[in-house]
Amino acid sequence: MEKYNIVFNEDTPKYLQIANHIKKLIYIKKVAEGEKLPSIRELSRMLGVNTVTIVNAYNRLEHEGVAIRKIGSGTYAKEKEENRNLLKEYSNIYKKINGGTLKDYIDFTGETTCSEFFPVENFKEALNKVLDRDGAEAFTYQDSLGYDGLRKSINNHFWGGKLDSENILIVSGAQQGIDIAAKAIINVNDNVLVEKPTYSGALNVFKSRRANILEVDMLQDGVDVNMLKKLLKKNKVKCFYVMSYFQNPTGSTYSIEKKKEILNLAEEYDFYIIEDDYLSELIYDENIEYKSFKSLDIYDRVIYIKSFSKIFLPGIRIGYLVPPIKFSEAMQNSKVNTDITTSSLMQRALDLYINEGYWRKHIKLLNEAYKSRYLVMEKFIKSILETKVDFYSPRGGLNFYLRISDKIAMDSIELFNKCKKYKVIITPGVLFYKNSMDGDRYFRLGFSVANIPEIEKGIQIINKLLQ
Amino acid sequence: MEKYNIVFNEDTPKYLQIANHIKKLIYIKKVAEGEKLPSIRELSRMLGVNTVTIVNAYNRLEHEGVAIRKIGSGTYAKEKEENRNLLKEYSNIYKKINGGTLKDYIDFTGETTCSEFFPVENFKEALNKVLDRDGAEAFTYQDSLGYDGLRKSINNHFWGGKLDSENILIVSGAQQGIDIAAKAIINVNDNVLVEKPTYSGALNVFKSRRANILEVDMLQDGVDVNMLKKLLKKNKVKCFYVMSYFQNPTGSTYSIEKKKEILNLAEEYDFYIIEDDYLSELIYDENIEYKSFKSLDIYDRVIYIKSFSKIFLPGIRIGYLVPPIKFSEAMQNSKVNTDITTSSLMQRALDLYINEGYWRKHIKLLNEAYKSRYLVMEKFIKSILETKVDFYSPRGGLNFYLRISDKIAMDSIELFNKCKKYKVIITPGVLFYKNSMDGDRYFRLGFSVANIPEIEKGIQIINKLLQ
Repeated sequence: MEKYNIVFNEDTPKYLQIANHIKKLIYIKKVAEGEKLPSIRELSRMLGVNTVTIVNAYNRLEHEGVAIRKIGSGTYAKEKEENRNLLKEYSNIYKKINGGTLKDYIDFTGETTCSEFFPVENFKEALNKVLDRDGAEAFTYQDSLGYDGLRKSINNHFWGGKLDSENILIVSGAQQGIDIAAKAIINVNDNVLVEKPTYSGALNVFKSRRANILEVDMLQDGVDVNMLKKLLKKNKVKCFYVMSYFQNPTGSTYSIEKKKEILNLAEEYDFYIIEDDYLSELIYDENIEYKSFKSLDIYDRVIYIKSFSKIFLPGIRIGYLVPPIKFSEAMQNSKVNTDITTSSLMQRALDLYINEGYWRKHIKLLNEAYKSRYLVMEKFIKSILETKVDFYSPRGGLNFYLRISDKIAMDSIELFNKCKKYKVIITPGVLFYKNSMDGDRYFRLGFSVANIPEIEKGIQIINKLLQ
Repeated sequence: MEKYNIVFNEDTPKYLQIANHIKKLIYIKKVAEGEKLPSIRELSRMLGVNTVTIVNAYNRLEHEGVAIRKIGSGTYAKEKEENRNLLKEYSNIYKKINGGTLKDYIDFTGETTCSEFFPVENFKEALNKVLDRDGAEAFTYQDSLGYDGLRKSINNHFWGGKLDSENILIVSGAQQGIDIAAKAIINVNDNVLVEKPTYSGALNVFKSRRANILEVDMLQDGVDVNMLKKLLKKNKVKCFYVMSYFQNPTGSTYSIEKKKEILNLAEEYDFYIIEDDYLSELIYDENIEYKSFKSLDIYDRVIYIKSFSKIFLPGIRIGYLVPPIKFSEAMQNSKVNTDITTSSLMQRALDLYINEGYWRKHIKLLNEAYKSRYLVMEKFIKSILETKVDFYSPRGGLNFYLRISDKIAMDSIELFNKCKKYKVIITPGVLFYKNSMDGDRYFRLGFSVANIPEIEKGIQIINKLLQ
């Protein structure tokens, strides 16, 4: 019985706190599937609440599919079947919608720029110029660091020449950057800190390394530093995976003070920061200044990862990684063991594209287009979904992260399934947590693929479903 | 003292057997660095040999840098410094020579087709046709399996339609195929079998998964099956990494009977075969029939991996993997977690290139060119190096693997270093063994980059250095 004990807070109805607590017990297997829950009378006595409160809590659990009432016998735990199948289902639909085989759906899943904005003609020109200029050389194996021209361009155009281009490693996108970094520095049972919630692709990599994953709550200006300190005091941590701007999924951006504080902690507690610079090109509020962890890093503790796929051409599969000097060689070996090197032709074409000034023009265009979509989505969420969700405005990036209000007896998996029937695809929050149950009231709406009329229509549909 | 005991064989001079035995003891740390070796008198008494034999053995160890004699004190173990630095040095020089920054060297390191044979014009045509045909679509994320057109072409052109194209996974080269397969099926402490010697890139992947690596000796027609059986009886094995044709580095090709026998063992002992179909396009002897493990696999136990980089364009970074059905999903997830997907434009261009018949023409051309180089290298090795090396003719592929005769007091690291001074780059055998010491008399000569005059000149130089 002791496990059912709760210290109530005052912000949330008690029946909800009870229901959430039991849900968590089931999720973390402290209550087994099929285990009988305490009787209403027992639990009300133990928690010192009215029996009606327990009835409401159990009703909610039943409604959410977490418990099942057997007439004349009691209430039993039931693991949510949806959870098990959701990931598969979501990944199927994500593939279909991104592969273009699901037409006339409203696609709120987008995390990368959409084909409408692909600079196909300019890039084709760059490819042909490279082939005329370099011939067969464009198809040789590159130095495992990557094409030196591109490394120099990255240094000059994006870092004002402040990096050492011999310490820039070209990778095939951010996912590979995370995988390579993990292989280079994470061993079995190492403690790895992640933001909660975080990008599922990173979670999968750390799990595959058999790391021990610790989560730090995300606030509006980055993680909860007090919680971070507590974790650091208790655990020897190897690295901390962060997205510094418009975090996926929350949209949160670290304040500069918080970045400095975390860098100091990295030095004090001897851990490394894996910075996934996710979407910092897309800042819609001039009060937000761009300063990556890497640029503030006086201790050489940041493994910086940048993808060109997200804001340029997803199919190009290029990004880069800048490690602390001491990991230079380990990262390079890790790249070689992963796939030898990234496509040399693509590296050369991207280099030329950047050098001929196309890159800057492209980013400017993207900013204009996405800022207007952003403002429209913000307006509709505020005006249409107002009372049904909690959220905050990220002021950049490609996503909003919403929490279904506690008043509404529907979780985001149910919302996902219902939306799907109306040809609207959202991303349920459960994908972004180590324990998926933690995200069951959240969902992400991306505006990178949906155009303005679709955004309005989609949000109207979500509004109806949340009634 | 007991560890110094040897059961002598009759084929090799005793002093050599003693020296080799002690070298191994040092390598496997049974004799520590700096440990004093037995006195000459002690050891000669214990082994029942003449003191001169021990003196010769110790001289050899000293000559090879494995031991050091201190006047008036005795002989001490010394770990070979060259070994520690060799990998780094080799990888530097390999990068330079492949990156084109080392001119007028004779390059015997090549493992992939050289730029002289890159079909740049045809591939450029294919790229432009794809861009005109598909536009922005050529830059979207692909289905994580890869571009379906390419998967179908692979099935039709290389497998006579016998595979399920939904079970073909496009990867970024063979190295990534091995990495993805390892992540999908190998856990910490799993036993993984490899050929001895084998491709170092595969060894690195298995080590990174913290697998326990077991080696099976390579014979001229594939591994020693008796040794394999013994290992299988003693150890629960997860998978066996094999190169079926012109194995890297030995050049050995499995007989069809041996393949069937190994497949039967896989079924009996419940393990999987990771088949790296390395260079089967380059068969120079019509008596060799092409039948991969995969094509003979009635048990669905083969993870087949094929790279297009080795025989087409190294910089293209495309290959494919065909897993047993039961691993389909795990492999796909492993790919997503590794780098989401392979460059879509490159996949589409390769597909078009295959479909327009360029592929077959290209392979035909390569076969003609490399067969003539092969015959020349074989002739020069036989006529020039005859008494100084042991080798056998692979009858295909891009390499010869040679063993320095025991009569010559030089190992292949020394040969590598000496060759380098004469601008000839060979690949020392130590790179291909779990315990590098096992390969210290072997070296690999590749003829993919060196042309016919360079082959003759390079072998003349090696001959002089081996005097």
